[in-house]
Amino acid sequence: MSETDTLSRKIDFPGLLTPEGEEWHYLDTAASAQKPQAVIDAMSRALGKDYATVHRGVYSRSAQMTLGYEAARRRVADFIGAKSENEIVFVRGATEAINLVAATWGMTRIGEGDRIVLSTLEHHSNIVPWQMLAERTGAQIDVCPLTEDGQIDLGALEALLTPRTKLVSLAHVSNVLGSVLDARKAADLAHSVGAKILLDGCQAAPRMTLDMAALDCDFYAFSGHKIYGPTGIGVLWAREELLDQMPPYQAGGAMIEKVAFEGTTYAPPPQRFEAGTPMITEAIALHAAIDYVDAIGVGRLFEHESALAAQLREELRKLNAVTLYGPEESAGIVSFALEGVHPHDLGTILDEENVAIRAGHHCAQPLMAHLGVPATARASFGLYSDENDIAALMRGIERTRRIFG
Amino acid sequence: MSETDTLSRKIDFPGLLTPEGEEWHYLDTAASAQKPQAVIDAMSRALGKDYATVHRGVYSRSAQMTLGYEAARRRVADFIGAKSENEIVFVRGATEAINLVAATWGMTRIGEGDRIVLSTLEHHSNIVPWQMLAERTGAQIDVCPLTEDGQIDLGALEALLTPRTKLVSLAHVSNVLGSVLDARKAADLAHSVGAKILLDGCQAAPRMTLDMAALDCDFYAFSGHKIYGPTGIGVLWAREELLDQMPPYQAGGAMIEKVAFEGTTYAPPPQRFEAGTPMITEAIALHAAIDYVDAIGVGRLFEHESALAAQLREELRKLNAVTLYGPEESAGIVSFALEGVHPHDLGTILDEENVAIRAGHHCAQPLMAHLGVPATARASFGLYSDENDIAALMRGIERTRRIFG
Repeated sequence: MSETDTLSRKIDFPGLLTPEGEEWHYLDTAASAQKPQAVIDAMSRALGKDYATVHRGVYSRSAQMTLGYEAARRRVADFIGAKSENEIVFVRGATEAINLVAATWGMTRIGEGDRIVLSTLEHHSNIVPWQMLAERTGAQIDVCPLTEDGQIDLGALEALLTPRTKLVSLAHVSNVLGSVLDARKAADLAHSVGAKILLDGCQAAPRMTLDMAALDCDFYAFSGHKIYGPTGIGVLWAREELLDQMPPYQAGGAMIEKVAFEGTTYAPPPQRFEAGTPMITEAIALHAAIDYVDAIGVGRLFEHESALAAQLREELRKLNAVTLYGPEESAGIVSFALEGVHPHDLGTILDEENVAIRAGHHCAQPLMAHLGVPATARASFGLYSDENDIAALMRGIERTRRIFG
Repeated sequence: MSETDTLSRKIDFPGLLTPEGEEWHYLDTAASAQKPQAVIDAMSRALGKDYATVHRGVYSRSAQMTLGYEAARRRVADFIGAKSENEIVFVRGATEAINLVAATWGMTRIGEGDRIVLSTLEHHSNIVPWQMLAERTGAQIDVCPLTEDGQIDLGALEALLTPRTKLVSLAHVSNVLGSVLDARKAADLAHSVGAKILLDGCQAAPRMTLDMAALDCDFYAFSGHKIYGPTGIGVLWAREELLDQMPPYQAGGAMIEKVAFEGTTYAPPPQRFEAGTPMITEAIALHAAIDYVDAIGVGRLFEHESALAAQLREELRKLNAVTLYGPEESAGIVSFALEGVHPHDLGTILDEENVAIRAGHHCAQPLMAHLGVPATARASFGLYSDENDIAALMRGIERTRRIFG
């Protein structure tokens, strides 16, 4: 993406200005992306002149809204190379997607003595649901270590796998380090012992071209708000044959076939997993977000953001007393520490300069423990990020160093 | 509410016009309410110039957004007379609220041989989660019958209660019949045997002044999209001491205190029940919806919609061969049948006249079985409904009768 491209993109995002109308250097896209006006407009139309509920009305606007909701499902299926839209379950976000798999597939397929493999760099949402499942079932969790530069060590993964391993659940891209997993290789390893593999795609879906068939994984989860869409919606993809076998998660309207006090039967997937009135307007706005991202090309976003990450690492390296975490090749996410400055203090001073970074444990406390720090500073890029944002960040860092001098 | 009031309200709702700009007679508010422009604008601002994630950022806009999210929680607490905002858990909708209670409080407090009392008129979302819980625990479900005019029979409820009854879970207002439960009396009965009571408030919250202390219930659930707010958000209220005892539901970021592979500790309520990035912009738009409704006064909505329901019943009764279901005094919801016309056909013909009703089982198949029909036609009113809507419906019914004549 040329600089002109990026600059022209910025104007699509009303969130990229300060209340005073100045440029806001938003470097927290890994936490949540800003939304293009097209997404906001889609939401407004869906809540306004197009509004009706789905699935149940006999009037035309409800039928239209149902078409819109199901078109969003097909759009997601197409975007990630799913075999069919029946493999797409709309959930609140990646967190719910992983909890759903743990509570349904996990509770019926994992038992005492079985093993679940996670890695040191996982987000809490890909740790705690499995801990709860392990507590309930008597399964064991194995933790795959990282290479020295912060990638999931696939050699170590291979050594950890046993015939009792039922699931491998890994981040496709680390939300702290930007490390990119060789997902196909991880899937092949998992399958070699008959285990299933779940990929937490929160950071990958907004940056990488996805093809479920090529990845050959079993479950894939991502959040709408991280891919320039609204809050309150996310996606669980699972192989159709797995969804078919899974019992319902939440129960209520729309997920049933027939309800009687004598016994209730359930709808086929994906409806079986979508109890109650769904996130109707969120699905429609997510559709708009995917259209927006796809029109640019997700692969170009990866190149763009990786180049910015490489540039930022280069600039930070020129300074004295900066620790850089993670691999040289990062998917648009750079974690670092300034010697003698707490990440929160850095974040606060940068805020005064209209630069927004994240400082904290990034919902990855085991990784922080591994790095030996309570927190890192993290700058993460989005499709609208450019060299001006890096320059503003570096000016802010220089100022911080003078203050703490 | 005078007619002038209502008419002036209609212009606040962009959804109340057809694509051709004609008046749309929307009589499906019990399924989902149209949204005032104030709600749409709040959503647009939150997704646009105000957007940031909550809880985690060190920059000021994220702090502002967190304040907005927590202000929404306080607004809900105030609106329903909760003791504190810590009793308010944001969920996807009432369906998730009930599933959450079943999976956490239910799984730890209900065992083999315990009894759960529901009624014949419950929505599927207040039946199926309890059936799933009963299957898992070996508990029994008792079904409280209805009075002849379609109200939950509190005499029968009293007779059903035993010392083994652990929970009574009832609709505060029936979504099919508009029957209003004497909730305080039901709560007193439940408590007399030491059971807890959950009220499904989906249809009550948009129509009745709520005061959790006066109702003396234990759990209360309602959906945002039925109270003129967005999809994707709802509210679970529970007594603080119950929430304190409940284990987490979904696991992930924001609901933890400390995560380690050696063991994880959880945050106190309500955060314990809100794993992952929450429905940020939905909470802010729900706040706007409650402000809108509260400015009119929910009690006035009840009077207004009950009067419209009484008028519609009166008009329908004048026709030959109409069956009216439910009690004379209905909270703005009227179910009926035209002899010789399937409800779906009626709905389709009305649609051509810009009148939207619902036809179907209304996610209440056991009630349909009780009424001896597969479906009913249902007209339901909202704060924007008026006599013109009734007149348009009656014209459409006359036309339908001529067609089927």
